[in-house]
This record gives sequence, C-alpha cells and structure tokens, in this order.
Amino acid sequence: MLTILKKKILNNSLTVGLVGMGYVGLPLAGAFSKKFKTIGYDHDKKRITELKSNFDKNHSVNLKILKKIYFSKNLNDLKLCDVIIFTLPTPINKKNKPNLSILLNSIKKISITGIKNKLLIVESTIAPGDSEELIIPLIEQKSNLKINQDFYYGFSPERINPGDKKNNIYNITKIVSGSNKNITNIIYILYKKIIKNIIKTNTIKEAEMAKIIENCQRDINIGFINEISNICHLLNISTHKVLKLASTKWNFIKFKPGLVGGHCIGVDPYYLAEKSIKLGYNPKIILSGRNVNENFPYKIFKKIKKKLGTKIKKRILLMGITYKENCNDIRNSKAIKLYKIFKEKNFIIDIYDPLIEIKSLKKIKKPKKFQYDVIIIAVGHDIFKKMGYNKICQLGKKEFFIYDIQNIFPNKPRSIYL
Amino acid sequence: MLTILKKKILNNSLTVGLVGMGYVGLPLAGAFSKKFKTIGYDHDKKRITELKSNFDKNHSVNLKILKKIYFSKNLNDLKLCDVIIFTLPTPINKKNKPNLSILLNSIKKISITGIKNKLLIVESTIAPGDSEELIIPLIEQKSNLKINQDFYYGFSPERINPGDKKNNIYNITKIVSGSNKNITNIIYILYKKIIKNIIKTNTIKEAEMAKIIENCQRDINIGFINEISNICHLLNISTHKVLKLASTKWNFIKFKPGLVGGHCIGVDPYYLAEKSIKLGYNPKIILSGRNVNENFPYKIFKKIKKKLGTKIKKRILLMGITYKENCNDIRNSKAIKLYKIFKEKNFIIDIYDPLIEIKSLKKIKKPKKFQYDVIIIAVGHDIFKKMGYNKICQLGKKEFFIYDIQNIFPNKPRSIYL
Repeated sequence: MLTILKKKILNNSLTVGLVGMGYVGLPLAGAFSKKFKTIGYDHDKKRITELKSNFDKNHSVNLKILKKIYFSKNLNDLKLCDVIIFTLPTPINKKNKPNLSILLNSIKKISITGIKNKLLIVESTIAPGDSEELIIPLIEQKSNLKINQDFYYGFSPERINPGDKKNNIYNITKIVSGSNKNITNIIYILYKKIIKNIIKTNTIKEAEMAKIIENCQRDINIGFINEISNICHLLNISTHKVLKLASTKWNFIKFKPGLVGGHCIGVDPYYLAEKSIKLGYNPKIILSGRNVNENFPYKIFKKIKKKLGTKIKKRILLMGITYKENCNDIRNSKAIKLYKIFKEKNFIIDIYDPLIEIKSLKKIKKPKKFQYDVIIIAVGHDIFKKMGYNKICQLGKKEFFIYDIQNIFPNKPRSIYL
Repeated sequence: MLTILKKKILNNSLTVGLVGMGYVGLPLAGAFSKKFKTIGYDHDKKRITELKSNFDKNHSVNLKILKKIYFSKNLNDLKLCDVIIFTLPTPINKKNKPNLSILLNSIKKISITGIKNKLLIVESTIAPGDSEELIIPLIEQKSNLKINQDFYYGFSPERINPGDKKNNIYNITKIVSGSNKNITNIIYILYKKIIKNIIKTNTIKEAEMAKIIENCQRDINIGFINEISNICHLLNISTHKVLKLASTKWNFIKFKPGLVGGHCIGVDPYYLAEKSIKLGYNPKIILSGRNVNENFPYKIFKKIKKKLGTKIKKRILLMGITYKENCNDIRNSKAIKLYKIFKEKNFIIDIYDPLIEIKSLKKIKKPKKFQYDVIIIAVGHDIFKKMGYNKICQLGKKEFFIYDIQNIFPNKPRSIYL
C-alpha cells in the first residue's frame, strides 16, 4: 500500500483532506491544492459557506487558490482522501489544562468512518508522547485497524505565523516524522511537493518536543523581560531605556515587554508543563515564565489604578484587543483579559480596535474627542501608528494620560510606559 | 575642576589608575595605556611581580602593551591618578548571596587615602541601585567629601568576554553613566579615547540594570534548555536531536544544554534577585533559571550513577574543569562541582585538563590507557577535539562509556549525551 501512496504522490494523483479550515489548515490546503486534489473540511458551516463563496475572513490565501480547494462540511467526503491532515486547535481550558477534545473527537469520528490504507497526519501542537500514547491507540481502537499495517500515522508540526508576510508555508523549514522509517520517507516526499526545506526524524516524540519548545522559549524570554519590567517599575527606571542599553551587547536577545497571549505562546507551555509533571519533573522555568505573563495584565491594571489615584468615574479607552499587532485574532488575548479586569473593578472602559468585529464586547466604531481619562494602547497596530500621537491625545480629557504598553510613541509627555 | 579633567583627557595628560588586574582590569589598563599614563594596581603581590616581569597568566594583553603599564601593589600610587577605575570581582558567598566586600573594602581604603577632585568609576557588576545606595555614600563617608562637588562618580559596566577573540575591549559598545549630566559627558569623552562605540545614560541605575540583565538572560536561556534536557531524559529522547529540529525555525534561539558556572552568568542573577526581593518582588523566572542550572551537575551525576548500576570501585575521568571551553578560568565552575559530588559519594575520580594548573585538585598530567569505567567530557576544549574520539576511547576499560556533555563527538556508539 505504501508504494501506491508513493506513486500517487509522485504522479500528483493523490487526494488530500484537511480537517480544520483555520489559520493553519486553509493555507496548507491552498499549498496542496496546487499539486493534488484537495478537500478542506470544517465543522463550522458558516466558515465553509464563506469559503465556498470565495471569502476568507483571515485573508490568508488568495482567490485563485481558494477556487482550487473543494470545501466541505461533510465528514464522509474525507473517505475519498488518501491522506488526512488534522489542523485543529489544541487549546487550554479555564484551568489552563490541555484540552485535546476538539482534535481527539475529530480523529475519533474519522476513524469510525473508515481509514483503511490511509495516512493520517497531525499538525496540531501536542505534548511529546501524545501521538503514541493517546492518538494512535485511539485511532486503532475506533477503527479496529492496526498502525503500520492497515493505516499510517505522521506528525508534522505547523509553523504558521499569522500576519507574518516573510515566513510562510512555502519558505519555512518543515519537520516531518512518521510511525516508521518508510512512512517518514513518504511524508517527506509528500511535503517536499509543496515545501522546499524539510527536516525529518523517525522519532515522533522528538518532533512533538521540537515544536512545543519553540513557543515555550518565546514565552520564557518575554516572561523574563516582563519580570525585568516589574523590577524596573520598583526601581523607578524605564524598561525600554534599560533594554536599549542592554541591546548594545552583541549577544543580547531583543525581546519587548508586553501582553503575551494567543493560541500558541500562551498555550503550549501548559501542554509541556502538564506532560513534564506527569513524568515526575516540575518544570520550574516554564511555569514561572507563564506565571509572570499571566499576571502581567494585573500588573498593568495596578499601575494604571495607582496613577489614577482616588478620582472616581474614570473613563478608559482600550486601543487594540487582538493577541498581537496587525492581526484580527483575539484567541487568548491578554488585552481582553485587561479589559475584563477593568470591568470587574467597575471602571467604564471602551474598546477601539478597527481590526476586529465582535458584538459581545462593548466595542466602539470610532472614539469621540475629549472623553477619556486614560488611553491604553495595548496592541501596536500599524493603524494606530498611522493615526498618530496627536490625534490619540485629542481623545483625552483635560487631565489624561496614555499608557503606551508597546512603546509605539516613545518619549511623549502625556505617556507612561513599561 | 571638570574643565581641567576634560582638558587632561583631550590633551592626553591624564593619569588613569585601574584597581584590580584581572580579566577586566588588565585589558582595560592596556587600552588606556595607549593614550594616558596608566597605573595598574592589584593587592596580589604575585600577580604584580609577574606583570612587572611581563608575564600575564591570562594571556589577555601582549608584551608591547604590558610594558606601557606601570604596575603597583602600593595603594598610595593611586593618589597620582585623576581617574580611578575599579575592576574588582563581585562574587557570591557560599549561600549564593552577593559579596561586595572586595569592591567595597578597596573603595573604602582609597577613599581614606584621598580622592579630592578625582573621578571614580566602577566597572564591576553590581545590582541596580548599589552605586547610589551603597558606594557613593561609602565614598562620601570615608573621604569626608561631597559627590559632584569634591569628587565624581561613574558606572561603566565591563563587557569583557574571556577567551572571545571577536568581541574585545576595542570593538564592543560600552555603556557609560555618571553622577550628573556633565560627568556623564566627561566619562563619555574618556572612554571614547579608546573605544569607538559608546552609549550613555544619565541614570546610573539604568546602566547597572542593563549590565546585569544581559547575564541573567543568558542564564535563563541555558536554564530553559537544561530544563528541556531534563524532560527529554524522562521522555527517553535526545536533547541535541530535538534542538537540531527546533533550530530550523527562523526565530528559535540556539542555546546548548550544559554546566553553567563562571563569575558572571552563575553569579549575576543572585545580585539581581537579592535586590528584587528587597524591593518586594520575587523574581520567579530568574531564580528558577538559576535553580535548574545549580542542580544540573546533580542531574548529570544521577544519570551516570544510574547507568553505572551497582558495579563498585568505578574509576572516572573528568575531562575539563574550567567554567567554559578554551579558557583557564575555574571560578564557580560547575565541572568542579560535578567533581566534588563524585568525591563526596566516594567515587574514584581523576581530572584531566591541560589548560589549568591547580595543586589542590587531584589532577593528572596525562591519563593512562584502559583505566576508566566512565569518561566525562565536561568542557569542550578544542584540545579534546584535536585529541579525537578514538584516543579518548583508549582511556576506557573494556566496558566503558563516555558522557559527552557538550556533544563534541556526536552520534558515537560508546557515548551517551544530554
């Protein structure tokens, strides 16, 4: 069966199915659609309807590519596929514990519909060991089939960076791993069809670990800078000035303080920590990094509250609520966390973020002049930079200040910074 | 008086005194001696005698430069100086608490001998606030003089990297800060005489903080990789292979696991942590990074012990005991820590390190063939790489293994790795 699969890849007669048409799945489907018949499945009917009518709310692929993909909300359509790739989210629950249910439920359903002779690949971020301890046993159980005999498995972690125009699906290096050496080679050939640089390993756990430590490292490093920022605050010195000085050393790594959320950096460390604790090792560094970053919105809230003093009925404008600049993704956004903290403490707070549309939040279309005691620039969208410092100042009351978290307008008289 | 100082700098008639002729002081004295009359003081009589006879055991400056410096073990010689620069070590005590006594005692003595109209500059790493809270008050008290009136103060953190041939005193960027704006400018002009790139700040605390976070950041990052290595060990996968995969991501920061000691990275985090705790903030990330790194020798010991099993009378060879490769510095070396752990547990352990000479340690000149059950390559000296894998294998008994901590001979059958 492997030779058939190999032949189909080489002569472009393969059918690929992608499960999950989000930030990862859609661009990947787009890439595969250039070579193979490609089915893009999502259980979200609205999303599929939009994609079918050539509208991608994430603006991640162009029209020409959209038209090539066969979009479906019907799980049975995946029966046609030789390869099924899972690009579903692996979030955390309210207690910051890994929540694999979206991925596992989907794998379960598809295993039941029949996966004989198919190659299943997971791109979602999971903890090291999850493929071999959770996913493969689940597939075997639900399909009543045997790995490396009746079906095959691979893990190839996604490295999509939403909003990044430089690093995209085509020019990044992709890690591939498989349930045995032969299948690893097949997966290598498969991805090589669309991506130039592929690195392979025969050990799935290595690939799982490699993916998860990338985001943990970023989390720790921003956490460290946030910790430095907390100390700078107590020393009454500017974090940004300190970082400017330190950055003149040849090996200083430039990170900025700020709110660390999102569906990767704010999530992945919990997956690795959970696994590590299960193995009997308390990952102090990973957890302390996450802890500092989780608490950072509270630190910012406290600084603003202290600066506001005992004045009552303060009106606050929160500019930017996405998890990072220039994207419309609000998953696990710490700017929203900051919003909620102010709401809980009965402050009047408006949100201004032209990049997103959410009805559930008290979001204003355009802030009015002379309304606010505090303007928090939480996310450094380019659109705010273009708006300019003076125009933002006009939104303030007579006595107002700006909390410019990302230092997008440095050294301004009305601003305070980290 | 400041105009006189400025004039002396500009027309090269200044006398500069350096206190501490170590890894930092001597190269700096060398640099200044090209422009000014330079006195190099050290309380270590042997060191001064050696330097006077043109021998520098650290090989940090050449003969031509050595001859230009006036070396002295007499504190009174510093009375001749317009500028006195302190390049003394600021280590930690056995409880990992900052020990400023070497620096403070020296400052005290020199303050008593008379510092009227002088500019005192500290290059040693100290915690943010130490200049203004400890050092300046001490100078004022002991000299009975007033800062910015009778004497001046500056802080300009050293960025010497022992053994680094690329980044040296002349081509690095140097941070300067002073007790007021004018003196900051004077210090700027002073260092500009010998160093091309200078960055200044009028806030001493910013300069102190900038310096200390550089090494803290490195400590955290290696600590993180060591934590990952600890988890990889439990997962039974190779840390180096995982890092190789992760390193293919464009923004992964390449650090290696290993023993983190030395007089900077293993020390500075304790200075910042102590200050932070005094200010009421528990620096979780900094302390957890240090904790993982402090415990790493024990982790390595345990792995070796487990692999050795219950065999008794094991003979171990420890190759390399300096705090990093290709240097002869053993201050706060974690390879020595590893040696001590084995000794405490009654293992027979020999040290082989051609780069150092210490009588107090059981160090052998050249290891004999067929002697060892375990060969630990703790430090990746080039000399070991040149020696080659096969020659090192010859040192082993019939049943032996190599613990190649720094992965200098990858993928070898007799080796185990992190």
